[in-house]
Parts: sequence; C-alpha cells; structure tokens
Amino acid sequence: MLEALRSGRSINRIVIDRAAQRNGVLAELISLARQRKVPFEFVDASALNRLSGISSHQGVVATVAAARYIGIDDLLELSRKRGEVPLYAVIDGLEDPHNLGAILRSADAAGIHGLIIRNRREVGVTPVVAKSSAGAVEYVPVARVANIAQTLETLKKFGVWIVGIEAEGKTPFTAVDFTLPTAIVIGGEGAGIAELVRKKCDTLAAIPMRGKVSSLNASVAAALVMYEAFRQRAAH
Amino acid sequence: MLEALRSGRSINRIVIDRAAQRNGVLAELISLARQRKVPFEFVDASALNRLSGISSHQGVVATVAAARYIGIDDLLELSRKRGEVPLYAVIDGLEDPHNLGAILRSADAAGIHGLIIRNRREVGVTPVVAKSSAGAVEYVPVARVANIAQTLETLKKFGVWIVGIEAEGKTPFTAVDFTLPTAIVIGGEGAGIAELVRKKCDTLAAIPMRGKVSSLNASVAAALVMYEAFRQRAAH
Repeated sequence: MLEALRSGRSINRIVIDRAAQRNGVLAELISLARQRKVPFEFVDASALNRLSGISSHQGVVATVAAARYIGIDDLLELSRKRGEVPLYAVIDGLEDPHNLGAILRSADAAGIHGLIIRNRREVGVTPVVAKSSAGAVEYVPVARVANIAQTLETLKKFGVWIVGIEAEGKTPFTAVDFTLPTAIVIGGEGAGIAELVRKKCDTLAAIPMRGKVSSLNASVAAALVMYEAFRQRAAH
Repeated sequence: MLEALRSGRSINRIVIDRAAQRNGVLAELISLARQRKVPFEFVDASALNRLSGISSHQGVVATVAAARYIGIDDLLELSRKRGEVPLYAVIDGLEDPHNLGAILRSADAAGIHGLIIRNRREVGVTPVVAKSSAGAVEYVPVARVANIAQTLETLKKFGVWIVGIEAEGKTPFTAVDFTLPTAIVIGGEGAGIAELVRKKCDTLAAIPMRGKVSSLNASVAAALVMYEAFRQRAAH
C-alpha cells in the first residue's frame, strides 16, 4: 500500500480499520495519504472485511482506479517501443476477480502487451484481483474503455486482427495465426462474448474439448490462447 | 445431494442445518441417508457455512470421500478400455479447492484419463471443488493415494513416463513427447513439487515465462500442460 502511494499509482480512496488506526505503520500511511491528497476514512473491521472481500488486509484497504490505466493509443505505442507485433487481450464482461487476477498473471507470463477491460461499472483492480495476480497487476498495462465494440473498430484501423474465443468458433485456436497483430477477445464466465462484440471479431476460434463439461474456466481459456500466441511467436 | 446419495457415490457424512431440518426436501434426504446408512447430524447455520466454505449450500452439506475414488490398477485398466495411451495428472500438495475444481474441469476437457491426489489429510472433493469443477467431478476418475512417490514408482513399472512441471525444469513443456504413456505431476501453489516426488520424475519440464512474475496460477499451469498433451495426441 505504501509502495502504491509512493509510486503515484492512482488510488481513489483509502479505508482504515478504526482499531488499527494507532498502529505506527498506518500513521506513516495516513501522513503519506494526506501529502498525496488521497481521501481516507475510518471504519469498523467488519465493514473493512466486506469492502475488501478478504480478511488478510492488515487493517487498511485502498480502492484503486485500477492499476495504471492507459489509453488504446498508449497500448499501440507500447508495442512499437517493444519492437514487437501487437498482442492484446480484451476481456468482455468477466465477473470473478480471481479470474481477472489469474489472467493478469498469465498475460504477464505470455508476454501480452496489455489488457483491455470494460468501464461499465467501476470494475477496476480490487485487492482480490491484485492478490490473485501475484504482482502482475504492477506490470501488465490495463486500458479501460467505455465501449469494447468501438475499441475493436479502432484497433482494426491500426491493422490489428480481432480473434474472439468461444465454444461455437469455427477455427481451432491452434490454427489461428497469432504472429499477426492480434487482439484476443475473452468473454465472461456465464454469457461469453456479447453479441455486439462478437460481430466485430475477424475470427471466432474455439478451444477443442473432449469431455462432457461444456466450457473451461475463463482464466484457463484465456491462458491457453495467450500461450498459443506466445508459442507461435517464439517459433517464428 | 439426493442425486449423489441415489447414485451410490461414497458419502462419508451429511451435515444438516438445524433450522432447515423440517424442510420437505431434506426429509426425503434424511430418509435416504438412513436407508443408505450414511451418518448425519444437525448443526447451526454458521457451523455449516464454515464447513462448506460456501453460503449457498441450501441447508445441507455432505463430506464426500472425493468423487468415486478408484485405484491405480483401475486407472490403467481404464486407459486400456479406452484404447488410448495412458495420460494422468498427479496433483502433489494443492491447497486451493477452486484450483482443484478448475483442474478437474480442464482435465475433463483435455481428455485426461484420471487424476491422482494425495491422501495425507482428508483432502477430498468438497462442495467448493465440485462447484468450481462445473460438473467435471462426476466424469473425471480420481485416485487417492497414501504416497505419491510410491505411486509414481508403480506407474513407472507399467511403462508410464513421469513428467514433473516446475519453474526450474530443463525442458520446455512443448518439447516433451506426450504421445508416450504419461503422468503429468503438478505441485502445490506455494511449495511446488515435493523433493521426494521430484526425484521420481523422468523429466522436469518448465513453462517458459516472459514477464516479471515468477509463477503461474496452479490450475493455469496444469491446463497448459494437459492441453499440450491433447494437442500432440490429436496431431499424432
């Protein structure tokens, strides 16, 4: 938390356990928050547990404006700087923060340049997401956009190929050419990719399944596709 | 639950919410439990929440002896019956039930013949595992063994190649020949594969990682390797 405050990461608000208020570490944190003009308030431990979704919060929780949000232009610029063909993951309607955290972790490992998420509600990177990401939240740039379908249109103008992953896809995901500039679109746990977003996809690819269960965990599906892209680019 | 009782799946014990006891559905369940000689007891709702790890348990929780446990011999026999080269996943020390559930789900999808888990504590398939598995717990056979290292010795005698997955592995996982009879060994979230188990592995394979985070989510790592085996076998 101190690290996040010091690094200038955008924090909306800090909420502190009333009982832990007199703790020395928290005093430093409060002073730093004052200095950075980050609003803070004191609540009961139970309210803090509810807010954070975890009980191992050490008496303080920050609501962050989700990592370091960047724009689509910044993402494209970033790929150019890395001297690599663009590779993004677009998350359309994911609900489980553990899954978002795991996807950030896999995205970091597979060399994805950035994640694009939706802005509809204040999704953002909660403490649970940050924890599940095992630190990847600090390394993988996240762009938050108002309209996924419109963002895909913008990406297309820059020559990015849009690959949606869904059970009904005609192409096996291993047959997609991920050495092209690519945005991989992953749907939510239940509903999958929204109809408006699906229409913007250049390719609908499926992960073949041999068993009786009809879908994979969303973070597993995302990892399989991101790693296939990684594999193809390493072999290229 | 009624389904599980009817199907004769091995249930150790049923625990019922004291307040929900007079419910009609539960009466049927209690009568069936009596008939099947499954021990049951009544507890407070809070104790039930703690036991199940979820709050959507509808007033009753069963501790199952983990799905339909089978023996190693049965696993080998199963592969023979399917007319396929053996392919198993061995889980050494996983702690998060969501991860075990997700692994069952991916194992089903990737055509793994069975999972081998450890018997040290009463691990078993809890309601959280079953829920995370999206039903795969009913389809993927699980063998529970007292000693993983010893089990790997047994598998070796039957010509099964043991592939351990860990960060320090010398071989990239995509370079392993999964068309051979194979048992894939996955370690726990923190400690990875235990030293005694590692020594039994014929190959130690790594999942390459490009980013700054040093490991993947355990269920993601398992899925990547199981799907690589699936891919190689489909192409074979």
